Amino acid sequence: MTIQAVLPPGVSKESFAAALAEYRAIVGDQWVFVDLERLAPYSRLMVPDDDAAHQPCGAIAAGSVEEIQRILAVSNKYKIPLWTISVGRNFGYGEAAPATPGQMILDLKRMNRILEVDPELGTALVEPGVTFKQLHDYLIEHNLPFWFNKPAPAPVVGPMGFTLERGMGYTRYQEQAQNFSGMEVVLADGSVIRTGMGGAENAKTWQAYRWGYGPWIDGLFLQSNFGIVTKLGLWLMKRPAAHKTWAAGFLDIDGAARSVEVLRDLRLDGVIENGMVAHMSYGVALTQKRSDLFNGPGAIPEEMWAGMAKQAGLAVWSAVGTVFGHPDQIAINLDIIRKAMTAAGGFFITEEQVSGPASILFNNIKMITTDQLSLEDFAIFNYRGSGGAWFAPVIPSKAKDVLECYRISQRTLAEFGFDYIGGFMIGYSGRHFDAASIILYDRDNPEEFKRAKQCYLKVVDACAKAGYPLYRAGTPIMKMTADFYGEAQKTINARLKHMFDPNHILSPGKSGIA
Amino acid sequence: MTIQAVLPPGVSKESFAAALAEYRAIVGDQWVFVDLERLAPYSRLMVPDDDAAHQPCGAIAAGSVEEIQRILAVSNKYKIPLWTISVGRNFGYGEAAPATPGQMILDLKRMNRILEVDPELGTALVEPGVTFKQLHDYLIEHNLPFWFNKPAPAPVVGPMGFTLERGMGYTRYQEQAQNFSGMEVVLADGSVIRTGMGGAENAKTWQAYRWGYGPWIDGLFLQSNFGIVTKLGLWLMKRPAAHKTWAAGFLDIDGAARSVEVLRDLRLDGVIENGMVAHMSYGVALTQKRSDLFNGPGAIPEEMWAGMAKQAGLAVWSAVGTVFGHPDQIAINLDIIRKAMTAAGGFFITEEQVSGPASILFNNIKMITTDQLSLEDFAIFNYRGSGGAWFAPVIPSKAKDVLECYRISQRTLAEFGFDYIGGFMIGYSGRHFDAASIILYDRDNPEEFKRAKQCYLKVVDACAKAGYPLYRAGTPIMKMTADFYGEAQKTINARLKHMFDPNHILSPGKSGIA
Repeated sequence: MTIQAVLPPGVSKESFAAALAEYRAIVGDQWVFVDLERLAPYSRLMVPDDDAAHQPCGAIAAGSVEEIQRILAVSNKYKIPLWTISVGRNFGYGEAAPATPGQMILDLKRMNRILEVDPELGTALVEPGVTFKQLHDYLIEHNLPFWFNKPAPAPVVGPMGFTLERGMGYTRYQEQAQNFSGMEVVLADGSVIRTGMGGAENAKTWQAYRWGYGPWIDGLFLQSNFGIVTKLGLWLMKRPAAHKTWAAGFLDIDGAARSVEVLRDLRLDGVIENGMVAHMSYGVALTQKRSDLFNGPGAIPEEMWAGMAKQAGLAVWSAVGTVFGHPDQIAINLDIIRKAMTAAGGFFITEEQVSGPASILFNNIKMITTDQLSLEDFAIFNYRGSGGAWFAPVIPSKAKDVLECYRISQRTLAEFGFDYIGGFMIGYSGRHFDAASIILYDRDNPEEFKRAKQCYLKVVDACAKAGYPLYRAGTPIMKMTADFYGEAQKTINARLKHMFDPNHILSPGKSGIA
Repeated sequence: MTIQAVLPPGVSKESFAAALAEYRAIVGDQWVFVDLERLAPYSRLMVPDDDAAHQPCGAIAAGSVEEIQRILAVSNKYKIPLWTISVGRNFGYGEAAPATPGQMILDLKRMNRILEVDPELGTALVEPGVTFKQLHDYLIEHNLPFWFNKPAPAPVVGPMGFTLERGMGYTRYQEQAQNFSGMEVVLADGSVIRTGMGGAENAKTWQAYRWGYGPWIDGLFLQSNFGIVTKLGLWLMKRPAAHKTWAAGFLDIDGAARSVEVLRDLRLDGVIENGMVAHMSYGVALTQKRSDLFNGPGAIPEEMWAGMAKQAGLAVWSAVGTVFGHPDQIAINLDIIRKAMTAAGGFFITEEQVSGPASILFNNIKMITTDQLSLEDFAIFNYRGSGGAWFAPVIPSKAKDVLECYRISQRTLAEFGFDYIGGFMIGYSGRHFDAASIILYDRDNPEEFKRAKQCYLKVVDACAKAGYPLYRAGTPIMKMTADFYGEAQKTINARLKHMFDPNHILSPGKSGIA
């Protein structure tokens, strides 16, 4: 028998062996992993932090709510922490690995049923292991006129993790936290609760009306370690009659900042439903290796980006989006967007007008904003190496904040020799943008790894101190991010944690809640 | 000194007198009320329940967070429950009176500052006592291009209560629970927490981005008694370039049921943002006294409504709404709505085409769906007497559920001699409707009061048992409604209550949480 790399903190080898025997009796030998080889998928990191800091002690794949309840009983008995994952990706945010070493991964991939899709209401009830690919295939197979909100790496990730992490999508529904309804949650003591209308045994609106009656507790299970969500109600997006992707090009960050205000006002006016403003570096990183572009010291200088843009006929910054609806609505809305972006100094085009290198960008935008599934966004990890860490400070939708947050991010990354690769994604209401950037680095280069780690901590710190803390944090910076949110929130989270999970067996360290 | 009517449960007269002296020392004599006359506004009931069941022991009006903290200390010391109100209306849901007798009303009307309005983001930070009238005047005075989501009796109620009760509006933003960002909450132990981005001292997005980092606790303070919300971030609605009110008339409930499905599909297609389907009785009740219409036994028969409709050139049921936007967008969207409603058998008109009695309905719809403020909806309480109780079962947006919920409601009301007055309001996502009805009765007629009380309990029970529990309950039926939502939700609410408020001094009985 191969021995696992680490033990759960404070648990003896004998005690852990006894627990493993009990886990195996619940799920079967084949669903408990402790050898390093089989743990590899749960240990692999892209974020810049030491592997040892996130090494699991093992993994267990549960097949049902009842198995989860029995696993919890064992974990409570032996005080073995369980780091719950659904599909188990979370690329650039810590992947499947736990926030702290020695946790047992509770993998829910086997629970992957699409339990119900209502073809009239456009709702779905799914288990944690369901992937977007699976949902996509289901909708096609059943000839249902629905799309769904999804993140870029949709095929290999799923709606459960996307929702619970409060991911940002690109369709009409954008912010996933605004667009789900109802959960089933297993608490640490094994009790099961159905939230919202799901509490009423015979209610016909569990997936249709999210708020239920009395206090709404679903929010407690977002980015949290207070329970294990085993069922989730999704709102599917009706397939639009038509759609068209557009872009407005800008020469510099000042133009990008103006375009953020344009997107804000268009959103407040109900003209657009999605939108982002991206630096050309993102598109370049998708298609080229950095070493083919630049071998100088430090980050690629802004003038070089500008030169490359000029040569390729691309904009340095592009505001992009897709409008949905009846063709007549689309024509009018595009006309409004065109006028507003042009007035802000943008060069406006729609998908029919595009050619050359800009086509790649357009196809990427079209793919993520519609029902197409593709893994082409993963090509970004070929840019510099296998390492990547997302960070997304939350900014108000104002030009001055775009400029300030960009300046801090770009300068801090450059200070450590990394290129600014990112942009600004509009939030649900139009009032905030996620200033989403990714530190791309070569994880196999120890010196670069070290720089990436320092850079990651510094840029997040600098943004937060300027008034732009993150909305979501990778495992290495969860505690640090929680600190930015202050003592009062930490105290209440700690009290809630103690109430829900007195033995602290559920995902300790998640969102800084130990 | 006039003596108050009741004492807090389990508190002696001497102990209460001592507490009152301490309360007075905090807020001043003029802000503590115990004599019956001054308590009248806090005791007045429209819902059909005995006055004695909701009699406060007194009222105290706090002027600041610091005063609230000191009041909480006194209440914890003497175990005096505080029933918190903001503006203190909640018409037809229990008004200002507590769920159980002997509670001290904690009135926050003095805390009525509009603390901040961001003219670019369209956000406002308000205190509990702010009314919609005040916000309306503020926006006009500062020439800001914003409206807000609001309920029918907007002038005399406020955004705090509207939001915390999860009220339904009629503008682009409809469901208020989807459209606020950030709270400040005083907990029972006097600690103060700012939620969401408000936890980060210098974050610039407290009112712009609602979800913050980690678990989202704001939902815990909706329809709840876990804390006292002292500040709230609102999302204002940008003033649209134009708007137009429309209606589609139907002859019977079958047509109304079809129109609900039409509204659902239009909402899923992004064509409409609001909408409701109302029985003509609502419009009639706004403008006429029942005794002038009908003196027979029992409820007004459906045939009589049909006859009145025919005579007046009105529809028995009307699907109504307002479209917002650029005039070109409006024209296209109205055309789509017209085609869909006509295909469903509706007679479609827009505001320019209306004349005669239908104008009253149109003006009412236009008023509640735009920025107009009016109290004309109150005229409904002249229909039969001063009594009224709203109940709104949640139904999926399907014709069969419209028919079933209507049938149960109409028959149960008729069984007790009351007219069905209500309709169906579309929810935020289009997937559910609130089947909102009001029992209008003469509260000064003891026999009718008794019937109304029985009817209220029976209709709510019958709807819930058919799968349509309420989303919000009047004080007399809070416990009953909580029971429908099951043991698991009751247990978790009780655990949360115990954690937040071990002495149970905050609004005991609210949402059935004792």
